[in-house]
Amino acid sequence: MTTDEQLDEIRELIATREELGIRGLTDRLGPSDWADIVMRLDDDEVAVVLESIPAAEIPEILEELDPANAAAILRLRPREEAADLLEAIDPDDATDIIAELSTEDREQILVAMEPEEAAEIRLLSAYPPDTAGGRMTPAFVAISPDVRADDAIVLLRRVAEEAETIYYVYVIDAEERLLGVLSLHNLVLTRPQTPVSAVMVGDPIRVRADADQETAANLLVDKNLLALPVVDEQDHLLGIITQDDVADVIEEETTEDFERIGGSQPLDVPYRFASAGLLVRRRIGWLLILFVAGLLTSQVLEHYSDRLQGVPALIPYIPLIIGIGGNVGSQTVTTLVRAIGVGEVRLSDVGWVLAKEMAVGLAVGLIMGIVGYLRVGFPEGFQIGLVVGATIACVALWSATVAAVLPLVLEQIGIDPAVVSAPLISTFVDATGLLIYMTIAGLLLLQL
Amino acid sequence: MTTDEQLDEIRELIATREELGIRGLTDRLGPSDWADIVMRLDDDEVAVVLESIPAAEIPEILEELDPANAAAILRLRPREEAADLLEAIDPDDATDIIAELSTEDREQILVAMEPEEAAEIRLLSAYPPDTAGGRMTPAFVAISPDVRADDAIVLLRRVAEEAETIYYVYVIDAEERLLGVLSLHNLVLTRPQTPVSAVMVGDPIRVRADADQETAANLLVDKNLLALPVVDEQDHLLGIITQDDVADVIEEETTEDFERIGGSQPLDVPYRFASAGLLVRRRIGWLLILFVAGLLTSQVLEHYSDRLQGVPALIPYIPLIIGIGGNVGSQTVTTLVRAIGVGEVRLSDVGWVLAKEMAVGLAVGLIMGIVGYLRVGFPEGFQIGLVVGATIACVALWSATVAAVLPLVLEQIGIDPAVVSAPLISTFVDATGLLIYMTIAGLLLLQL
Repeated sequence: MTTDEQLDEIRELIATREELGIRGLTDRLGPSDWADIVMRLDDDEVAVVLESIPAAEIPEILEELDPANAAAILRLRPREEAADLLEAIDPDDATDIIAELSTEDREQILVAMEPEEAAEIRLLSAYPPDTAGGRMTPAFVAISPDVRADDAIVLLRRVAEEAETIYYVYVIDAEERLLGVLSLHNLVLTRPQTPVSAVMVGDPIRVRADADQETAANLLVDKNLLALPVVDEQDHLLGIITQDDVADVIEEETTEDFERIGGSQPLDVPYRFASAGLLVRRRIGWLLILFVAGLLTSQVLEHYSDRLQGVPALIPYIPLIIGIGGNVGSQTVTTLVRAIGVGEVRLSDVGWVLAKEMAVGLAVGLIMGIVGYLRVGFPEGFQIGLVVGATIACVALWSATVAAVLPLVLEQIGIDPAVVSAPLISTFVDATGLLIYMTIAGLLLLQL
Repeated sequence: MTTDEQLDEIRELIATREELGIRGLTDRLGPSDWADIVMRLDDDEVAVVLESIPAAEIPEILEELDPANAAAILRLRPREEAADLLEAIDPDDATDIIAELSTEDREQILVAMEPEEAAEIRLLSAYPPDTAGGRMTPAFVAISPDVRADDAIVLLRRVAEEAETIYYVYVIDAEERLLGVLSLHNLVLTRPQTPVSAVMVGDPIRVRADADQETAANLLVDKNLLALPVVDEQDHLLGIITQDDVADVIEEETTEDFERIGGSQPLDVPYRFASAGLLVRRRIGWLLILFVAGLLTSQVLEHYSDRLQGVPALIPYIPLIIGIGGNVGSQTVTTLVRAIGVGEVRLSDVGWVLAKEMAVGLAVGLIMGIVGYLRVGFPEGFQIGLVVGATIACVALWSATVAAVLPLVLEQIGIDPAVVSAPLISTFVDATGLLIYMTIAGLLLLQL
């Protein structure tokens, strides 16, 4: 992470074209720091920076950048240079970057690349970016089962520069089907003459190329693997996904969950690169649905307009009451959607979840209800205070109940519970909360 | 991940005391699957399962469980057995588990453990669990700089069972200060007689034991490390944090962010283990603050009670209007707090962020405003329709603006922007939205 001050310092060096100063910085800053800086500069500034730092470091910086950002830089370079840069980048990252270019730019750059490297990128491009196939790299080490342990080490030494990880070596048959895996660790500790088939772990954990990237990340985490082999339907080894992809996958999926809980559709691109138009398209759908649902509140209030006109003191507390319902619902649903998301809560848990959330809803409802009774009772009289206080308690309980049940019910009927956003619960509770308010007002004010 | 059906199958095996059946499952299920199952069983069922699966697998299952859950299981075992189990668990996990026990249980188990293993746990317990020191394991491999490469490999072979990772070997001086790091990779590729000091990478990236665990996780991810050394103020090597901790750290921190954006204080324990009392304590604080802020809405409405009584047709649209403000604010603030959280947006970005969000707020406001104008205009007359439609557009713009500025302003004055929850924005916009509504009604209805 770079601070704003560092950024200012760099901007000044750029403005004064202090190339020596920028070069001096390369000792202090790694590729991820540079990526962090480049992301914040405009095109002209980026051009100056890229001229001033050693050419060999540029591919690493592009790997660390968001693909959309890296593609924007490639677009500014001559085609031949862009091709050379892509060749020096890990193929999985290069694939993500090239996917951000127009079809025309993409083809022209691929043609300018070495045929072998271009072919790798074309292979990887066949899988959507959020699948295991889209995440994998073909830069793995594979050997046949009759290779000896010492020869395997010699082979590793030769490919160490190219491979993404040499900590695992995969064993494949003549048709490239996955047979087993060996760790470097195993290889080093084995007698030199042993064939690898004797020491490999057979039938290793693998993932299909069309599986969700989240499935692959979960396997890497749950099974404590450094790399996970990716295969096609016929079990041919296509690539590997490594530990360092896990953080990226989790970050991407988590960001989607955040956007959903706030009531948007996921952006699919980093916020910086989302145009205002894209943001509008991702947000307006839910807003209009919630708008229509919100119209129910005006129908409830119109239905009870006589009661409200008869006791106008009830009107000022309408926003307070539905606000409380929204707040309790928002707390409950974010906690619960997250607990479902990390696999902590399932459908079979609905019993205790509901019991716990209803207890919590009742408790916070009673506390706020008493505060409301006193706060409203003093100026308005304790009849109105009682109506408001009792309504607050009921609305809090109701809101917690709805927020606890709805995500689990959706999961049951096969809808991703992540669509239950805080705004959805709030809007749902708005109309029903008003019904509770008007009903309690009818009961208590007619009775007393 | 286990499905509910698998759980039912296991429950049935337990009920019929089908020990052979449970044993049969151990071939199919790994430690993380068992952890997933054990988490969902009650105490009696857990006791049956633990009797039926091979004793050697139990420590691994405890490592995969949440520490609170693992501690609950230890509490049910005789003290000597609990001590043996903890000795077989990685010291960093054992430390987290024992921290969940009462001081008395903790001391009795530590006394029953081998002195060396107990000492390791006591050392690790000195650091809070959310720091680098609390996450580290002392199970690293360290050698002095004059050791030869081949002797280092022999040493590795000896400790391979005990160490958490043998992919890195650390080089320390006589006072145990960190001098350098060697990858297994380097060692294997080096001539046997070379002293490690000649091939090590000097001055490796490290983290202080009192640093935040998130700092350590970010370093592991950004620098693509398999392990990160943890040192004290005098640069003595205390332990390492490995790649497999990264996913846990990210998950923990993300869950906290979720709870905050929903308007709760973070629970600090998994949802399953949070009692209703704890949930109430974590939620009631913000609820009461928002309640008091919400009282402003009733003051606004009381202030304008004449205007509302004069045009009662305005009343039914109050919840709709403030609901729209809340929805737009919630969308904006969740997206933005997340973008700040992953380091994509900083204070220096306030200009373009504000411009983008205001454009989006205006666009969605105009769309919803036109819908509102037509929908309300037909039954109520187009004067009221115009008031409602214009208010919706202004409230959406205002809400997007507040939600975009507030997190960045808080970051500026040193408050974590994660405290800006969706409920906070909604509540803030409720009162101001009503002011906008009443002002527009005053202007348009007096004028027309």
